[in-house]
Amino acid sequence: MISEKMKEFLGKGSAIRAMFEEGNRLKALYGEENVFDFSLGNPNVPAPKEVNEAIIDLVQNEDPVVLHGYMSNVGFEDVRQTIAESINRRFDTAFSAKNLIMTVGAASGLNVILKTILNPGEEVIVFAPYFVEYGNYVGNYDGKLVTISPDTETFQPNLEEFRQKINPNTKAVIINTPHNPTGVVYSEATIIKLADILREKQEKFGSAIYLISDEPYRELVYEGAEVPYLTKYYDNIIVAYSYSKSLSLPGERIGYLVIPDEVEDSSDVIDAAAIANRILGSVNAPSLIQKVIARCCDVQVNLEFYDKNRKALYNGLTELGLECVKPEGAFYLFVKSPMEDEREFVALGKKYNILMVPGSSFACPGYVRLAYCVSHETIIGSLQAFAKLMEEIQSLEK
Amino acid sequence: MISEKMKEFLGKGSAIRAMFEEGNRLKALYGEENVFDFSLGNPNVPAPKEVNEAIIDLVQNEDPVVLHGYMSNVGFEDVRQTIAESINRRFDTAFSAKNLIMTVGAASGLNVILKTILNPGEEVIVFAPYFVEYGNYVGNYDGKLVTISPDTETFQPNLEEFRQKINPNTKAVIINTPHNPTGVVYSEATIIKLADILREKQEKFGSAIYLISDEPYRELVYEGAEVPYLTKYYDNIIVAYSYSKSLSLPGERIGYLVIPDEVEDSSDVIDAAAIANRILGSVNAPSLIQKVIARCCDVQVNLEFYDKNRKALYNGLTELGLECVKPEGAFYLFVKSPMEDEREFVALGKKYNILMVPGSSFACPGYVRLAYCVSHETIIGSLQAFAKLMEEIQSLEK
Repeated sequence: MISEKMKEFLGKGSAIRAMFEEGNRLKALYGEENVFDFSLGNPNVPAPKEVNEAIIDLVQNEDPVVLHGYMSNVGFEDVRQTIAESINRRFDTAFSAKNLIMTVGAASGLNVILKTILNPGEEVIVFAPYFVEYGNYVGNYDGKLVTISPDTETFQPNLEEFRQKINPNTKAVIINTPHNPTGVVYSEATIIKLADILREKQEKFGSAIYLISDEPYRELVYEGAEVPYLTKYYDNIIVAYSYSKSLSLPGERIGYLVIPDEVEDSSDVIDAAAIANRILGSVNAPSLIQKVIARCCDVQVNLEFYDKNRKALYNGLTELGLECVKPEGAFYLFVKSPMEDEREFVALGKKYNILMVPGSSFACPGYVRLAYCVSHETIIGSLQAFAKLMEEIQSLEK
Repeated sequence: MISEKMKEFLGKGSAIRAMFEEGNRLKALYGEENVFDFSLGNPNVPAPKEVNEAIIDLVQNEDPVVLHGYMSNVGFEDVRQTIAESINRRFDTAFSAKNLIMTVGAASGLNVILKTILNPGEEVIVFAPYFVEYGNYVGNYDGKLVTISPDTETFQPNLEEFRQKINPNTKAVIINTPHNPTGVVYSEATIIKLADILREKQEKFGSAIYLISDEPYRELVYEGAEVPYLTKYYDNIIVAYSYSKSLSLPGERIGYLVIPDEVEDSSDVIDAAAIANRILGSVNAPSLIQKVIARCCDVQVNLEFYDKNRKALYNGLTELGLECVKPEGAFYLFVKSPMEDEREFVALGKKYNILMVPGSSFACPGYVRLAYCVSHETIIGSLQAFAKLMEEIQSLEK
């Protein structure tokens, strides 16, 4: 008796989550150290010590009625102002509290903004490979997901196809940089071209096309890679941010939307997003963690840990003959499958206790995603398992 | 350029939230102690000390990667099992972890279950007066809200009209006991009759009709009032619970759904609700607070404080000639307006710095809601202001 829409999900589930359960099963069977679980983007670097220090200080010194109480649906004003000033300092922007809405992570922020802008049947463009949940979020509001095929050379967005697919029914475009699942950072040149195309099409069709920038990996970059702050390149842009990765707080569900003054009908969009945040059931982002963020928004997790994993896994796999774009950000490698059907590669990997997510889950078959937010021992141990896996594949080919 | 659906909200906003802003304005103008703000159900009794003790202990002793990390979308298994056992002990039920889904408060829980079951156009019945957000939650999934008119004698649900309005298109019924805005507790006799009607109609129409019990006030009862645990009276029932009031944690956004095994297609409903919780953007309920709840689920706020306010306000107002049902639970009085249009009464109240919410906001004009989760001084001070207000009304009538 569940709804028709939800029936479609049953059985299908989330491939990533299914892999998560499979990982738990294998670990119980073979021991944690013998399973190489690259399936889930769950940070394994602990939150910076400042987070727990802030929690304890707040609990000991703040009025509990305020600390655990309701505030405006958009979040505590002082928290939003503090974060706005942090963004301004780091990216030379000019936001204030009113441009920020605290949300239950970026996933909730994306739902809030999609509910705010989407009419049924309107189109939202994504670039493959993309996080499969985008399709579900768009579907929540009866929007239509339009997929741009991948540029598998660079995994920068395929802007030629993008230009062709924008039409008067296009309401929004979601991008994600640093990128899940490839680890690629969109270059400034890419952003400029993308913004030019959007402006050209807005003018042509006389409509607003919102660029939604999903940024949970903004701070996770290596070798000094630059992630342009996108509000500088385009007016109708909304940023969905999360502290899940930058502060290793994925379970706490804390992030924000930035809705700049330059967005068309900005104050209507802000007001409607505040209402969407309320009526979708979040009401407000968790209160204690909001206050924690205000004290920690200039802090970040230890990136050296991820960087060490990144190098070891990238070097190890390429030495085994596997191909992938060297990631500049996030904590994923997107590896070309040595077997034509990457799901067979994923299945064979399980024989060696290697858990990978098929690229089909990101609308990009022929590749697999490895999340290297795991212990360094797992990386090192996995390379022997990968060597055996590759031997078996080579023997199959003979 | 916001969606047509959201445009309807702009300008309208929430009357309760607007009053909240008005309260802040008046307090800045006249001083906090001179404003009698009965508008918002924001608990002013601090969380029990066990909450902050649990937070500090967890932060000092738990692995931060677990404490702040992802878990299953339904919540930590140990947390759900602990809460299930607490419910079983207190209400003689037989739930286990699998029957519980941790949610971002009851508001999110209601959204999750409505998304799980509702097809567009299906009807959800509510009993006036009702929490206005129910209409918005139902509207999120394109359901149709059907209102049963109030029984203003007792504020128990009007079961005769209820029986008449159930039809083959009825998918769910939302009830709320102890009740916002009246403070009434539905009697066991009411629950038995209501369940009988639902069973009769299920049989007649050959369809499942879900009873959704919104229970944020379950623990807030006075003079030994009993709140029947509803899963004992009807099979197709889902409980949406929140710790916002029982532990004074409204800002933390923590609650759960109970989906009993007796619900038709129970495991499909549980699986679909877990997916709805994920794709609506919550992903999971906040992790640290989940663990806190497991340690505090048998604790509750100091009810004497609310009870003292309840008696003082009820006695004070009835002595002034105002009429209302004596509340047995929650922290609201629902007072009959001494002026025909209660919005005029609310407007006149502001002259005396008294903030009340018009009954129209609960689909029950002619009444006003007073939330007595305020300081006792506010109650005492307000009685003088109410006396002057009543004098002015009497002089107007002459």
